[in-house]
Amino acid sequence: MADISAKDVQKLRQSAGVGMMDAKKALTDANGDFEKAAELLRERGLAKMAKRADREANEGTVGTYSHIQNDHVVMGVLVELVCETDFVAKSPEFNDVAADIAMHISWSNPLAVTREELDQDVVAKEKELIEREAVASGKPEAAIPKIVEGRIEKFISDQVLVEQQFVNTQKFEGTVGEMVVALATKMGENISIGRISRIAVGE
Amino acid sequence: MADISAKDVQKLRQSAGVGMMDAKKALTDANGDFEKAAELLRERGLAKMAKRADREANEGTVGTYSHIQNDHVVMGVLVELVCETDFVAKSPEFNDVAADIAMHISWSNPLAVTREELDQDVVAKEKELIEREAVASGKPEAAIPKIVEGRIEKFISDQVLVEQQFVNTQKFEGTVGEMVVALATKMGENISIGRISRIAVGE
Repeated sequence: MADISAKDVQKLRQSAGVGMMDAKKALTDANGDFEKAAELLRERGLAKMAKRADREANEGTVGTYSHIQNDHVVMGVLVELVCETDFVAKSPEFNDVAADIAMHISWSNPLAVTREELDQDVVAKEKELIEREAVASGKPEAAIPKIVEGRIEKFISDQVLVEQQFVNTQKFEGTVGEMVVALATKMGENISIGRISRIAVGE
Repeated sequence: MADISAKDVQKLRQSAGVGMMDAKKALTDANGDFEKAAELLRERGLAKMAKRADREANEGTVGTYSHIQNDHVVMGVLVELVCETDFVAKSPEFNDVAADIAMHISWSNPLAVTREELDQDVVAKEKELIEREAVASGKPEAAIPKIVEGRIEKFISDQVLVEQQFVNTQKFEGTVGEMVVALATKMGENISIGRISRIAVGE
């Protein structure tokens, strides 16, 4: 892991308006390079864009998706897509992306929108499981921390909505976070994913 | 408050398959009469009906409601209505009730489905507020506990979905819980409300 300073983490949190885990991960991925980390956060759709930070984002839409089987809804999904103006909130393009994200969620079943919102108990339990498996596999003891780190990182990025690869690659190639950034750039507004909900019968 | 025994609470919890708060409330409302309390729980749709208890309830439907304003969805609601058979799950009547409950939730915004699921921190905070108000009102000190008890009871029953009066009295007069019991009786199956979700933009 790159040598990252607590001071940089703090600075990045404040300038980009992100949580500690996101800031740490960006700095780690950027090998401790502050500017590159800030750029990564923007690319990932996590940083609040500086020039837009003073504008309030409290408009938006709710993307919905219903999976129908045997004449009734067996799964429903809601996703809140937040923007700044009513003009964007009612635009077909914005609402199409909200619907696409709802459909994506029905398929991917993410545990949270961002790393920050991921239940740390779930992560801890998964880590325990991975550690036990790694030890049981008979791999050399010295290699285990790196193996565990890699696998828990994969687990987290698989479970977090904005880091998941968008399911319909014909419409967009990249993560859901990147898709939201592309939309925000096109619309010229802060756009972010708010709350999500997915209810499947008997799950 | 009626004198209720911890033993009766425990017995009621086991026989009716309900949580402690529901059992206590039923016994209190029944002035400690065990049989009457069990009857109340059945009426309220909380008790698992004995003759049906051995059948598994893992079929169901998801009732959905979308509130559209200015060409986009500004609020979405999901409610899981659980039953035992696919036959009931796909029946129009069952799905109509699911849709009605979703519409009701959009209007009433309940904090939880049952008393048991209500966040106890929220209840404690509300109680504190009510106590402070009651003291400030200058009412005699001896009367305050009873006032607080009554008002916190009202707060809870207002916030709990199954205890709320169903909004469309032309369709059904009574609580949402009673509406579900009426449906279960008609269908001859265990029917209960599972998870609920309500997302309103900017709320």
